[in-house]
Amino acid sequence: MITADVINDLQSPDLNFVSGSKQSVAMKVLPPEIADTDSLVFVSKAPQLEQALKAQAKIIVAHKSLTLPEGSSSTFFSTGHVQLAMATILPLFDGKMIRFNQETKIHPSAFIHPTAHLGQGVYAGPFAVIGEHARIDDGATIGAHTVVECYATVGAHTILHPQVFIGASCEIGAHCEIHPHTTIGADGFSFAMTKEGTHKKIPQIGKVVIGDHVELGANCAVDRAALTETRIGRGTKMDNFCHVAHNVIIGENNVFAAGFKIAGSSRIGNNCMFGGDAAVSDHVSIGDKVVIAGRAGVTNDVTQPGAYGGYPLEPLRDALKTLANMTQLTRIRKDMARVIKHLGLNEE
Amino acid sequence: MITADVINDLQSPDLNFVSGSKQSVAMKVLPPEIADTDSLVFVSKAPQLEQALKAQAKIIVAHKSLTLPEGSSSTFFSTGHVQLAMATILPLFDGKMIRFNQETKIHPSAFIHPTAHLGQGVYAGPFAVIGEHARIDDGATIGAHTVVECYATVGAHTILHPQVFIGASCEIGAHCEIHPHTTIGADGFSFAMTKEGTHKKIPQIGKVVIGDHVELGANCAVDRAALTETRIGRGTKMDNFCHVAHNVIIGENNVFAAGFKIAGSSRIGNNCMFGGDAAVSDHVSIGDKVVIAGRAGVTNDVTQPGAYGGYPLEPLRDALKTLANMTQLTRIRKDMARVIKHLGLNEE
Amino acid sequence: MITADVINDLQSPDLNFVSGSKQSVAMKVLPPEIADTDSLVFVSKAPQLEQALKAQAKIIVAHKSLTLPEGSSSTFFSTGHVQLAMATILPLFDGKMIRFNQETKIHPSAFIHPTAHLGQGVYAGPFAVIGEHARIDDGATIGAHTVVECYATVGAHTILHPQVFIGASCEIGAHCEIHPHTTIGADGFSFAMTKEGTHKKIPQIGKVVIGDHVELGANCAVDRAALTETRIGRGTKMDNFCHVAHNVIIGENNVFAAGFKIAGSSRIGNNCMFGGDAAVSDHVSIGDKVVIAGRAGVTNDVTQPGAYGGYPLEPLRDALKTLANMTQLTRIRKDMARVIKHLGLNEE
Repeated sequence: MITADVINDLQSPDLNFVSGSKQSVAMKVLPPEIADTDSLVFVSKAPQLEQALKAQAKIIVAHKSLTLPEGSSSTFFSTGHVQLAMATILPLFDGKMIRFNQETKIHPSAFIHPTAHLGQGVYAGPFAVIGEHARIDDGATIGAHTVVECYATVGAHTILHPQVFIGASCEIGAHCEIHPHTTIGADGFSFAMTKEGTHKKIPQIGKVVIGDHVELGANCAVDRAALTETRIGRGTKMDNFCHVAHNVIIGENNVFAAGFKIAGSSRIGNNCMFGGDAAVSDHVSIGDKVVIAGRAGVTNDVTQPGAYGGYPLEPLRDALKTLANMTQLTRIRKDMARVIKHLGLNEE
Repeated sequence: MITADVINDLQSPDLNFVSGSKQSVAMKVLPPEIADTDSLVFVSKAPQLEQALKAQAKIIVAHKSLTLPEGSSSTFFSTGHVQLAMATILPLFDGKMIRFNQETKIHPSAFIHPTAHLGQGVYAGPFAVIGEHARIDDGATIGAHTVVECYATVGAHTILHPQVFIGASCEIGAHCEIHPHTTIGADGFSFAMTKEGTHKKIPQIGKVVIGDHVELGANCAVDRAALTETRIGRGTKMDNFCHVAHNVIIGENNVFAAGFKIAGSSRIGNNCMFGGDAAVSDHVSIGDKVVIAGRAGVTNDVTQPGAYGGYPLEPLRDALKTLANMTQLTRIRKDMARVIKHLGLNEE
Repeated sequence: MITADVINDLQSPDLNFVSGSKQSVAMKVLPPEIADTDSLVFVSKAPQLEQALKAQAKIIVAHKSLTLPEGSSSTFFSTGHVQLAMATILPLFDGKMIRFNQETKIHPSAFIHPTAHLGQGVYAGPFAVIGEHARIDDGATIGAHTVVECYATVGAHTILHPQVFIGASCEIGAHCEIHPHTTIGADGFSFAMTKEGTHKKIPQIGKVVIGDHVELGANCAVDRAALTETRIGRGTKMDNFCHVAHNVIIGENNVFAAGFKIAGSSRIGNNCMFGGDAAVSDHVSIGDKVVIAGRAGVTNDVTQPGAYGGYPLEPLRDALKTLANMTQLTRIRKDMARVIKHLGLNEE
């Protein structure tokens, strides 16, 4: 529960107190359609505002384009960017760190190798494993059952949820968050075929390097490089089930929806967005500010910023037309047969 | 090993004893093509019956449409629904619970928070972690290394296999089964973009609520809602590698094949079936009794029951034609060039 | 660090010492573009050789087609197959087994059931769980947090990385390697529909049998058979996120890129290659020496060796044409409208 005062005290540049009591207390946050009198509600559109008002929500954070009523019992804040206001206010309601609370910061069942270095205020949950010469920086959280292998490093204030795997020598930045069952630093997939048709493993002696402020969803896998580094740059965010093959280099502030896959040695610049199940072939280079639609397949370099989609990849505008015309294909085939017959042309 | 008598005693309405000795003992269950004299065999078709007879299988459970021979040494049951007979009889041969047997129900290495509530007959395997104020109902099984975070609940007789993750405050129904490496309650994927092009996390303070009799395969992920609940209704079954994003609401008795993905805030009714790698966009609503073919992409609401497929989605009948005509595309393009030339039209 | 002498001593048939000092010492392995004087470098092409020479790399392993300079300070080896040379030499630099080193082979926190059989020199990491009557053969490595359930077997010298799951009664061959978060032996996905529209589980009482020299990537899932065995043959390699459904039988020396999925009861022969996200329907049979392109969907038997792609599947040559013509679809539809109008035909 928080009071309107606390929100006001955040002094967020894009969040302004408008009217009502600063002593109003919200017990929870609800979407407008199920708001009640105890709730804080974020509203972007007029009908949502109506719902929140009707419910007499305690605190309403509204987009600045909306006209706020006078004489309401609610306390109002306005914002130019509702999502950003959510990102700013919701941490006040987030109990995430409660999950990791215990009597002792380092659970007695955790296995910490004597040569591992743990900074100030590090948390390690039940059965966590921190290997030889691993380094965990100040304030980092290592969830239950998470394994940080030898010589790996985890930056300050990073949260590794339970059951995460960080392979030997991999480096995770500061202020990162990695969800359960994600695998960092499994071997890249690389075999040499022998004359006999068997496949001989090419050892993967590189590592993975992940920048600061990176978030990886649940059940992702980022493979270690063959010789050097697989890299994910600062501020990049990945949803669940993303696959990053060896030697891939991904830049900063990119966003990848669930099921994204990228094959070996490909590169992505900065500030790109990829839809769900999009895939990138190996040895492809994608520049900055590229938007790739869901399910698109990128098999060639993309050097120009812009939006693309489809497989094969086209500018998004064309890709959407191609997609729409897919459902005309049967009619087109029939028309073609009709035309050919009409013209008396031979079938070929 | 079981005797025919035990099957008879199941008194399943759709399973009838026909002939042979009720003292016959089957040591195992085999498919017809490798049946032997010690085996129980399920047969749907005449050639399978022949195989089972030739092998002198001890017990034969046959579809009622098949004519059973007289004077055979086998014991016969008939059924109107062979798969249902399998679902009824196979538990007699299933050693699943043996995996969880130990000298003590609660393994001494498990970490159970003192404030957690465990019902009667709860099993907790080696290194299981059950958090603060978590509640595990009667007869539930918590596999080795499985983590149930604080305030989460697990219903009666539910089986969580090893290495499952149940995040804080999530609720799992009774009689569910969840396979290894499945993640329930990781954060939904939600960020607000700043003016500088960075992405600021919107905390996900909701939870996941899963009904009774739900089965989730291995390596799935169901994200917690932003504010409220991500829901999977009673009796719904998911294969491996399914992804359910935040705020999704899935109804009852649906079946999802492997690799199904559904994006944020979409809804699915009851009694639907989805093929492998089918995907649903965000904010889409799908009604009851909808069948979606494998690899289909659903980007708009589906309000009518029926079968659909393709991407873009079409009624299945049309989708199959579109798919078949895909292989005609090269010929169509050539024919078009021919026609245009024949008619003396300009290329455009 | 290794000396050229050690490489020479490998006596690999396809790797020949050419010139330079056999006392040269390489501290690391680098790709040509960032080679330095302390490095060993593999080069396939002339520009790479130039880079390595310019960097005065200590040891250069070059394809035999390249002309090596005289008077260089580097030590040279030549090979007819650079990738195979990497597979031969890189183990000298691979610190993988260091991850598993500890004071004791069996970590005191591991839970080994008293009836489990462990061979000579078996390693079991922190919190490993080895169940009742499980058998771990000589020199096998069981990573931290890995679970080997009752009656399962793990062959000699196999490496199970941390957080792997091997279900009850499953059999893993010798010299295998399985990466984190891979699930072997979850239940196959099988339900009988009742008259009421609910789905009743058909217990899966079979197992998984994996041959020798198999590698499975991170976050894969191989389901146990309904009654018999799901099989992956000797020498087959799978990348991350592969899904193998129940009763599937996969032969020897196949290679599967990330995201491969195969549905129930399908079969694949030997020496096949599958691109990323390729999928195979249920009850399909694929022969030997078949190459399937990425994203292809196999819904019918493939009896002839050769390369295929697309969905629906076509010979690769045709599939690539179909793919290319996809981007012509919008133009084709417009041309068709033009032709129909020109000919005065009715719209149908």
